[in-house]
Amino acid sequence: MTTTTLLHLDSSADLPGESVSRDLTARFAHAWRARHGASGYRYRDLAADQVPLLGPAYAPLGRRVERRGVLSPAEVSALAEGPDERREWALTQPLIAELLAADTVLLGVPMYNFTVPAALKAWIDRVSFPGAYTDPATGRSLLDGTRVVVVTACGGGYGPGTPREAFDFQTPYLRAYFTNLGVPDSALHFVHAELTRADDIPALAGLQPLAAASLAAARSAVADLAASLTG
Amino acid sequence: MTTTTLLHLDSSADLPGESVSRDLTARFAHAWRARHGASGYRYRDLAADQVPLLGPAYAPLGRRVERRGVLSPAEVSALAEGPDERREWALTQPLIAELLAADTVLLGVPMYNFTVPAALKAWIDRVSFPGAYTDPATGRSLLDGTRVVVVTACGGGYGPGTPREAFDFQTPYLRAYFTNLGVPDSALHFVHAELTRADDIPALAGLQPLAAASLAAARSAVADLAASLTG
Repeated sequence: MTTTTLLHLDSSADLPGESVSRDLTARFAHAWRARHGASGYRYRDLAADQVPLLGPAYAPLGRRVERRGVLSPAEVSALAEGPDERREWALTQPLIAELLAADTVLLGVPMYNFTVPAALKAWIDRVSFPGAYTDPATGRSLLDGTRVVVVTACGGGYGPGTPREAFDFQTPYLRAYFTNLGVPDSALHFVHAELTRADDIPALAGLQPLAAASLAAARSAVADLAASLTG
Repeated sequence: MTTTTLLHLDSSADLPGESVSRDLTARFAHAWRARHGASGYRYRDLAADQVPLLGPAYAPLGRRVERRGVLSPAEVSALAEGPDERREWALTQPLIAELLAADTVLLGVPMYNFTVPAALKAWIDRVSFPGAYTDPATGRSLLDGTRVVVVTACGGGYGPGTPREAFDFQTPYLRAYFTNLGVPDSALHFVHAELTRADDIPALAGLQPLAAASLAAARSAVADLAASLTG
């Protein structure tokens, strides 16, 4: 029997006690470890331990790979030319392997300026290497059995029907990104905590009860998800 | 007579000779300098010289400011507590001042994974400090006279009516972001170079003539814009 694996990524700039998204992902991870044990648990703090921005050698290596088709990691390593391309691949390949090894990916994502934080985008830009999630033998996605749980925290409200719905470039974006990688839509789970700034911003003060209800519902949702997802 | 100012920001990971967005913004900047002289020209390479990710002290300072309302930079400086908050503000305030001083902002933005590169998002996350673009006296946006020229470069095609239109989280996002800051929609100019990967990706090979036409049109468009924008 193989160990089931959870890859837990946080991207909030706030410290654990200050961050709604970190609170919610920690609750999911705690419940998951209680059920599956700690041996398959992987944690990465994308804010405190930044994934380096792409360097100038990343794209030339990617283009050389893309012209050949879908290559294995070993074949990509063999194609890397010079220290700069080898360094880019050395920064990238372990993150890809970590993502491929996960049965479940848990993302803590505060909304910064209507979309994902730069810290998460740095990870996305680096792990999205050409062909990395395609099976060279079959052409199928290597992520078609991967579950993704995205926990978002928004200062305001951006849900369907709200005045700010058109400003949500976070949830629709992450859905498009992971679907494009081959994660089935049915394996993508979103949990939203909204109005997290209701206590700070005078204009949102009347929405404090809604904010509290949203947080309580999100806490229930992560607990339920952690309990219901098998593996 | 005051000097007119251009703030030129590039965000491609590729080196100048390899980057379509850098080529196009350089053409705009060259034409602009030929007309207005070099004294008002400011350049920042967001990929080579990364804007640091937000640290844990950024949001607490922002929340303290937001509870007071709209504050001047000097008032924010006075509110910053401890070395971490002061460091965050010291990293942030010069970038805000640079943006406020610009008559025209020129952004070079390749599409990475359907949206802006992490390098640009790091700048966006840092300059979007609460109240920084609101006049404390009048409540009006301090960017209501600022022009923004966004040059995008996309490997594929994401225009209206294409199969990938729904995957464009770059142009709609930047329009929403700058409009929200108070830049008038009429002062937002987009120039698009599409299908820039047509030479690299076998599946796009048949689109090479369209790619060449898109690049030629984008080169004309930046030259025309640089010639037509006053100030």
